[in-house]
Amino acid sequence: MSKAPNPARRSESSRRAILAATGDLCSEAGYGRLTIEAIAARAGVSKKTIYRWWPSKGAVVLELLGETATIATAPPDTGDLAADLHTMLTEIVDMLTPPRNSAGTGVISEALHDPDLARDLRERLIQPGIDAFKQRLRRAQETGRLHPDADLDVALDLLYGPIYHRMALHLGMPDPDYLRTLITHVLRALTPPAPH
Amino acid sequence: MSKAPNPARRSESSRRAILAATGDLCSEAGYGRLTIEAIAARAGVSKKTIYRWWPSKGAVVLELLGETATIATAPPDTGDLAADLHTMLTEIVDMLTPPRNSAGTGVISEALHDPDLARDLRERLIQPGIDAFKQRLRRAQETGRLHPDADLDVALDLLYGPIYHRMALHLGMPDPDYLRTLITHVLRALTPPAPH
Repeated sequence: MSKAPNPARRSESSRRAILAATGDLCSEAGYGRLTIEAIAARAGVSKKTIYRWWPSKGAVVLELLGETATIATAPPDTGDLAADLHTMLTEIVDMLTPPRNSAGTGVISEALHDPDLARDLRERLIQPGIDAFKQRLRRAQETGRLHPDADLDVALDLLYGPIYHRMALHLGMPDPDYLRTLITHVLRALTPPAPH
Repeated sequence: MSKAPNPARRSESSRRAILAATGDLCSEAGYGRLTIEAIAARAGVSKKTIYRWWPSKGAVVLELLGETATIATAPPDTGDLAADLHTMLTEIVDMLTPPRNSAGTGVISEALHDPDLARDLRERLIQPGIDAFKQRLRRAQETGRLHPDADLDVALDLLYGPIYHRMALHLGMPDPDYLRTLITHVLRALTPPAPH
């Protein structure tokens, strides 16, 4: 994390209290009204303690999101690519769908203006899943199940992008059927025509 | 526009001065530091005048963006679908690429928390292009050039989405080659295999 000092110096119980307070305040009043003051008061720590470990409220919220996101630590891998993509995208959609989206949407909104936060968001929450699925797509490409000229970076953007587009324009977040159709279309874009 | 009173009452010269001041201030100091006070001072009008016509600074900036966006008024239509998609996506990318992206990124960031602004953003700037291209994709589907089961709403999300995904995570905005690859992949997802 940017500007984060040695995490070994953190007290784990204070860290837990800070994250719990952040989650409660986000649910109660929304990301927009969240302040470091309010987190400190609720968690029973000083503002200085919070700023010693995190550079901004966005960074605290991001750590909270990372705690519960399995995509960040263990992207799904059952061997069924389409099903695993569905699991991964569902987790991201859940994080960005009202009424539980205050933290996720707040961090994305702030990251648009804060390159450090955007880098942390990418590295801690999104990139592990992207890397894991890119590796699986590459293996499928090497064994001929995907087009040799399929662009795997574009492929990942095609999978994630619609979620951000629908979120940005309030077009209604994807439901399970939408995600299945999305994945079918993207895999079709990557798959060579059946031999004949 | 939400809460906008009769536009006929607007003075066109004041409107132009307000939009010009907004553009200058956005370029100079960025969307984040833009205030209605500053716009009023620079344009030589009262704050009241601005609030009579627009509900928020986001709405003023959105009108400014709409003034120059051909996608909002005349989506490209040369008959070459891939080329026209490239023209349209290039215009959106330009609006969101540093260093000229302050207004566009600012409005999107604010719209994440402001459903009224998001609706205006959609209706005034993005939806005309989406509607025009959806109609063209539907015609192509009716004449058999696209899969009968291609989902055209998903198709438009696939075209726009990667831009928002790359913007949200600061992954580097698409260049012309990227957009060509993107469009090729999406059209491949929509196109039936060659007959044999």
